[in-house]
Amino acid sequence: MSKNSSESSAYAALGASSAKGGVLAAVGETGPARYFASPVDDPAGDPNYAFFLHADGAGTKSIVAYLLYKETGDPKWFRSLATDSLVMNLDDIACSGGISSLILSNTIGRNRSLIPDQAIAEIIGGYRDCVGMLESEGISIRMSGGETADVGDLVRTLIVDSTLSARVPRDHLVDTTHVTAGDLIVGFSSTGTARFEREPNSSVGSNGLTLARNVLLSRKLASAYPEVCDPSLSHEIAYRGPFSVTDYHESLGMTVGEALLSPTRTYAPLIKQLLGELKKHIHALIHCTGGGQVKIKRFGRNVRYRKENLFPVPPLFSLIQKHGEVPWNEMYSVFNMGHRLEACIPAGAANEAISCAKQFGIAAQVIGQVTSGDGENEVSISTPHGVFTY
Amino acid sequence: MSKNSSESSAYAALGASSAKGGVLAAVGETGPARYFASPVDDPAGDPNYAFFLHADGAGTKSIVAYLLYKETGDPKWFRSLATDSLVMNLDDIACSGGISSLILSNTIGRNRSLIPDQAIAEIIGGYRDCVGMLESEGISIRMSGGETADVGDLVRTLIVDSTLSARVPRDHLVDTTHVTAGDLIVGFSSTGTARFEREPNSSVGSNGLTLARNVLLSRKLASAYPEVCDPSLSHEIAYRGPFSVTDYHESLGMTVGEALLSPTRTYAPLIKQLLGELKKHIHALIHCTGGGQVKIKRFGRNVRYRKENLFPVPPLFSLIQKHGEVPWNEMYSVFNMGHRLEACIPAGAANEAISCAKQFGIAAQVIGQVTSGDGENEVSISTPHGVFTY
Repeated sequence: MSKNSSESSAYAALGASSAKGGVLAAVGETGPARYFASPVDDPAGDPNYAFFLHADGAGTKSIVAYLLYKETGDPKWFRSLATDSLVMNLDDIACSGGISSLILSNTIGRNRSLIPDQAIAEIIGGYRDCVGMLESEGISIRMSGGETADVGDLVRTLIVDSTLSARVPRDHLVDTTHVTAGDLIVGFSSTGTARFEREPNSSVGSNGLTLARNVLLSRKLASAYPEVCDPSLSHEIAYRGPFSVTDYHESLGMTVGEALLSPTRTYAPLIKQLLGELKKHIHALIHCTGGGQVKIKRFGRNVRYRKENLFPVPPLFSLIQKHGEVPWNEMYSVFNMGHRLEACIPAGAANEAISCAKQFGIAAQVIGQVTSGDGENEVSISTPHGVFTY
Repeated sequence: MSKNSSESSAYAALGASSAKGGVLAAVGETGPARYFASPVDDPAGDPNYAFFLHADGAGTKSIVAYLLYKETGDPKWFRSLATDSLVMNLDDIACSGGISSLILSNTIGRNRSLIPDQAIAEIIGGYRDCVGMLESEGISIRMSGGETADVGDLVRTLIVDSTLSARVPRDHLVDTTHVTAGDLIVGFSSTGTARFEREPNSSVGSNGLTLARNVLLSRKLASAYPEVCDPSLSHEIAYRGPFSVTDYHESLGMTVGEALLSPTRTYAPLIKQLLGELKKHIHALIHCTGGGQVKIKRFGRNVRYRKENLFPVPPLFSLIQKHGEVPWNEMYSVFNMGHRLEACIPAGAANEAISCAKQFGIAAQVIGQVTSGDGENEVSISTPHGVFTY
């Protein structure tokens, strides 16, 4: 069993980072965390409330939307970027226990010579769609406008970010220091079609897209649309895959572009119900984004997370691994590999959590357990491709 | 007196926009506004409070910092981008009357192969500097972390955005429907050295930088650093100026790069005092960013803003006009041209507002007046170069 760095090498070669070690060190933010996202004091001054102001975005998923737009001529592909941008914030905050008094602001940066106003209208419409769907699931978000900047000298195509705020009773927060040896880890599938989704989800969130795009999509696309590519990257690593975005792939049951652009699933409706029914049993909720299955390492104190029963690897991730020749240990530290939400809960409550997920059309299962650690936290993952320890 | 469109033509040729007509139409946001920034309901549910969640950023000013960094090797130039990003939000919200319970979140997108971790550390340090300075001026902002994304396929160099929230008593809001014929317009200078600034300010905010960079900076820079340029722009319009960022210019009293990178002045400490002493007389506070001296047109009802006594044009704007051969009417609709804050107040209170500004080391004067309109609002500006009406 070898000890692997949680910094990804294939990913780093592409100028991206899953663990962000350099940045975190540069700004002095390292070490374990108590809540999944970091709260600040309530702006209304009530000591019983915490407040979140959280920024994230669709990342380079916007490039996939752009390529589909260019190849098909249809601006509809931009629409779901709003879901990606919103959910990357919402699920981070929800994992901290914050699903109340939500307010959303959005920031779009575009190259106006390439991205038409209609694309912006799709994205804004997409925010409305996503907020409407969440409303029907009992989660209210107010939209507080945003900023669209034409910055073609900065942004090659399109960047879609947003900021979400939440005001949350402190006793609703999920305090991950409660994670205890003996807890089970329940994983909630990132594939299938949740009851609030219209189409099967490929499993991808809005992280790892730099790696995914570059190993799956072809040089032909990058040549036709050089604006989707950092010109400083060599042709040996950038857009080195065999596919166009419109190529159908049997294993995916959809085109490669559709699979890469599959909207980031929100677990917030499920989290809301889990916290409503099982709050006292929920010791941690982890949103497996950047860092993938290793993200959990920063949470809890002096524990080992032993994951031995993951979901089957979703076909998209197998395809990325195969064509990128990405080491499997790296795959698990970049992508969610089958579940983008996991909960640490005592054995007695696991079945209830799993049943709860079924009501939302989301498969769930016990994927591992927590054991006592030996100093620094550790994550070990047993996979068909070996046991990886981080 | 000719009627000029408020959409800028030289600017539009560069793929940017001061009036954002296309985007606003695409998302259905047009027409007059009541508050300078748009509030939403209080997340704490108090009907006597409003809430702002406001997103903006340093725009393409980051490119100037990058060029200075490349030419000098010193990452310090990135530091003040934090001030730009923060102040573009803070002053918008402050103009609405919101200077309480402020919380800041930041988003940085970078091309990791070009922007080192040290640059990110400078920016985060810059946020701390700016927040510290504001604290010493009686304005408290809590920092709620942020997101740094390595997105080289999307961002050529560096994009620095932030989101600011404020919770504000509704009776503190500045309701621009109070603007009345007979009000004077007081302008607050964007040049000089305010008491909380360390160096003379060139006057530039964080808008209009696409135009400013491209008409002042040289092809030689764009050739040496092609990453600062949208490659789809022709050499006839992009980086067509005579200067390097390190060229000293007599009229500026600093290098061209320093003038372009001069940190966006915050008027928030002054606004706080104005609202403290003169709230009932302040009918509008306008932050002259995108739209420049025409920004005020969206505020008030059925009025004419007659500006006849502007400050002398700051040398940087004269230089931009000269080298860009930018029509003067366009200059006034893109840049602040001497004051980036203006207030509509009754004649009796104007002197007090001007005295108040002096305490902050900020020159102020009556620059015009409000007269009754004839349907749609109108702005007319008397300048040494003609009278422009928008």
